[in-house]
Amino acid sequence: MLQTALKLYESQGSPNSRRVRIFLAEKGINVELIPVDIATKAQFSAEYAAINPRNVVPTLILEDGTAIGEVPAIWRYLEEMYPEKPLLGTDAKHRAMVTMWERWAEQEGFAAAMEAARNWAPGLAGRALPGPHAYEQIPALVGRGEARLGHFYTDLNSRLETVAFVAGDRFSVADITAVVAIDFAVAALELDLPEDLPALRTWYATVSVRRSLSA
Amino acid sequence: MLQTALKLYESQGSPNSRRVRIFLAEKGINVELIPVDIATKAQFSAEYAAINPRNVVPTLILEDGTAIGEVPAIWRYLEEMYPEKPLLGTDAKHRAMVTMWERWAEQEGFAAAMEAARNWAPGLAGRALPGPHAYEQIPALVGRGEARLGHFYTDLNSRLETVAFVAGDRFSVADITAVVAIDFAVAALELDLPEDLPALRTWYATVSVRRSLSA
Repeated sequence: MLQTALKLYESQGSPNSRRVRIFLAEKGINVELIPVDIATKAQFSAEYAAINPRNVVPTLILEDGTAIGEVPAIWRYLEEMYPEKPLLGTDAKHRAMVTMWERWAEQEGFAAAMEAARNWAPGLAGRALPGPHAYEQIPALVGRGEARLGHFYTDLNSRLETVAFVAGDRFSVADITAVVAIDFAVAALELDLPEDLPALRTWYATVSVRRSLSA
Repeated sequence: MLQTALKLYESQGSPNSRRVRIFLAEKGINVELIPVDIATKAQFSAEYAAINPRNVVPTLILEDGTAIGEVPAIWRYLEEMYPEKPLLGTDAKHRAMVTMWERWAEQEGFAAAMEAARNWAPGLAGRALPGPHAYEQIPALVGRGEARLGHFYTDLNSRLETVAFVAGDRFSVADITAVVAIDFAVAALELDLPEDLPALRTWYATVSVRRSLSA
């Protein structure tokens, strides 16, 4: 494990925090984890808002106190400072492809699962979007989010019929976002992986046994 | 102008294409522009789907035929190959901050404007989300998108009371995304910048006179 002076405000129940914890575990980077209790809405405290004005986890704190929010920004900093075991790509073209496919997994999979869950969960009434502003739930977005996830599963299965990992022939952040989205959809929405998508199921089985996923 | 063998499939009417055209103009990079007529839904043709399976513009084509979709992926490739006049940041920490703030502008501003417009425009009935799959418009998202834009204007004004540009003291992709979002909101939704947000109006006036914005 590579010891660092970095700190990560995060929550065990936050899929975005999990995207960063898996990334850190894959690269063998140790940071101090500081739990933010989202069950009691601690991310809306004045103390945390001073660190992250969007009131979301995770946030990475550098040694000089700089606060970096947003998963892709945290990944980008960590990859540049700790380039071994690259997860964002290995050259300019590959980095562009990883960026493209990770974004695809986020928009079509991760965001769809979040949309369905946030517009359904009784505990998130009036908080249908993350951030400092209150938005009412829109019931039609539950079904739309679930429909989008169905397309995500089918489209990802087609993709994985031709490549071993989401962004090509090696494990990357695109796989992290996809597997975190699926695990969240299965746990929060009971949207299990369909039986008739064998390439997706094979990839999921392969990725799920990585030790980093329990981080 | 730096001549290249790159090609960009794009549309004059596409805000995402504009984000890339401004980036290219700022850096003085010349690429061949190939128009995709989104008015006649040419992005759904089999020919274009073979280039970009998400059926969206823009797509950057490299000399070896590699197709890079998604604005942040295109930016990342171009910045790495043509590092002069950096728009994604100047060191690891700055690159993380630009990534964070650009993402903030995209999620809170750009996505909000798109959400309002796509769920309102009669020509996009049944096409409320970009991509290959059909989704019905949800009328409640028009008002929500407009409310989100209102918060974006107010929050961006607060930010610009302390810094000259969205991500700090120099122009970056965060400014590109913010100004493209605002111009689209003004043109498509008639959501003019409020009079009582002077820092936002000053920044907008400063950024709007850049020659790259007419690209």
